[in-house]
Amino acid sequence: METVNIVEVGPRDGLQNEARPIALTDKLRLIDQLAEAGEKHIEAGSFVSPKWVPQMAESAQIFNALSRRPGVRYTALTPNVRGAEQALKARADEFAIFTAASESFSQKNINCSIAESLERFAPVMDLARTHHIPVRAYVSCVMGCPYEGAIRPNTVTEVSARLLEMGCYEVSLGDTIGVGTAGSWRALLKQLLQHIPVKNLALHCHDTYGQALANCLVGLDAGIRTFDASVAGLGGCPYAPGASGNLATEDLVYMLAGCGMHTGIELDALISAGNHICAALGRQNASKVAAAHNAQHSARNR
Amino acid sequence: METVNIVEVGPRDGLQNEARPIALTDKLRLIDQLAEAGEKHIEAGSFVSPKWVPQMAESAQIFNALSRRPGVRYTALTPNVRGAEQALKARADEFAIFTAASESFSQKNINCSIAESLERFAPVMDLARTHHIPVRAYVSCVMGCPYEGAIRPNTVTEVSARLLEMGCYEVSLGDTIGVGTAGSWRALLKQLLQHIPVKNLALHCHDTYGQALANCLVGLDAGIRTFDASVAGLGGCPYAPGASGNLATEDLVYMLAGCGMHTGIELDALISAGNHICAALGRQNASKVAAAHNAQHSARNR
Repeated sequence: METVNIVEVGPRDGLQNEARPIALTDKLRLIDQLAEAGEKHIEAGSFVSPKWVPQMAESAQIFNALSRRPGVRYTALTPNVRGAEQALKARADEFAIFTAASESFSQKNINCSIAESLERFAPVMDLARTHHIPVRAYVSCVMGCPYEGAIRPNTVTEVSARLLEMGCYEVSLGDTIGVGTAGSWRALLKQLLQHIPVKNLALHCHDTYGQALANCLVGLDAGIRTFDASVAGLGGCPYAPGASGNLATEDLVYMLAGCGMHTGIELDALISAGNHICAALGRQNASKVAAAHNAQHSARNR
Repeated sequence: METVNIVEVGPRDGLQNEARPIALTDKLRLIDQLAEAGEKHIEAGSFVSPKWVPQMAESAQIFNALSRRPGVRYTALTPNVRGAEQALKARADEFAIFTAASESFSQKNINCSIAESLERFAPVMDLARTHHIPVRAYVSCVMGCPYEGAIRPNTVTEVSARLLEMGCYEVSLGDTIGVGTAGSWRALLKQLLQHIPVKNLALHCHDTYGQALANCLVGLDAGIRTFDASVAGLGGCPYAPGASGNLATEDLVYMLAGCGMHTGIELDALISAGNHICAALGRQNASKVAAAHNAQHSARNR
């Protein structure tokens, strides 16, 4: 059985985009339940300025209070060297840095050009190297940008190659607004894989247009073995309020199991973790696998 | 550009499974808006006993009141020769018959064995032959049954081959409870395509576990060129109330366009048709493409 790695982004990317504030204990319980369900790679917090992302203010507390399970990697988003120093102090296992494949998006999202964002990451990479911390990179808008529209595959390749040269071990290709299809993902991957080894790439598909799982299948067929997902589809889409955002981890795990892939994740426990955090947030579970599971469960108990 | 055929099942399979009754004028408007959006194959009604399916009681009126557009095929579900006679009188362009790949499902759904259901269709096929009416066949539960669980691919192949021998021009493979994955669909199609030409097969994927679009992609890659879908995801899942049912036509059309396939369907007009019927039903639009489109539209108008 081949193994597929899931990077769980619910506790960070997910909760960051939920409107309702959430108690520290609920965040900690979520992270622990995800690890208990068998998730091995969890983005647990973000050391950005709390002025910009108030939901992430407690990241140091989260990393300090975590009950760290052996074999689980707890990642922190580190936008600059100041954030990386805080993440180091909080004993994050991994840094995650982020830039975009769209100049307009980079300017609006992180107030600098793509080139400037890469310069800003140089001291983060130095710090990581000194302390033997692996660094993961996100590239946003690989399939399209809310400001520019279509993005050239060449730009994605250049930015990704540059991040790997700088020392990141993996680039997560983000379809931030979910506009990609099986067709456009195939075209991008065909281009990228001429220049970048498949083992250094991950897919981060959003489900805004319902395409995320089909797009992951395209990646899987192309040899991609790492996928980002968010339990219960936490997160929504900041560019289209009311639309879907992150792919639900449950739905991805269900597909991968059906394709004979090993993830190490126990689906029932994962669904339960998603149900708990949705109850705490007072929102519907956006995973269809969870919805089907919950509907059957309540039918049995009727 | 290659062409893919969409069989729109929203006005029948979809509305039949909606709890709320709906006015005849709303049904007629839906059918006409779908045709106006470019849909060429629309399941418009069902000549089953209104005792069993009250939502379909008006099918004769629908067929009589339809403004028939040239090049559009209006199909009627015909469970037996009495229904087929009514459909003929109402000038349906096509009959659709249905059986299952699961004995238990056949017994519970249509009160007879699979073999008996095929016998029951013999006079329907005779009537169709006499009047030169094409007949489409549905096979339910090809990926799993709510009563039996897993279904052997051999059974699906045998039932499908029998329906084609009887004179049906196409078999629509129904994943009635949406449990299929890319893996199980690949296994089934590999088996089926050794015995049945790909042009005689269609996929009818349900989205109960969020897998429908990825499963359609598997079919597309295997050469399938006909897919059933339901505008706005009308229908839900009768076996798990609260769970998703039919694949939304909008989401399928979006994927196919991205894969360079021609459907002849104008997405904006299709979304508008789905929004209208959802308003009439007082329900949310279950198409993610429609939700993203609507969210962007209201953001622009804010």
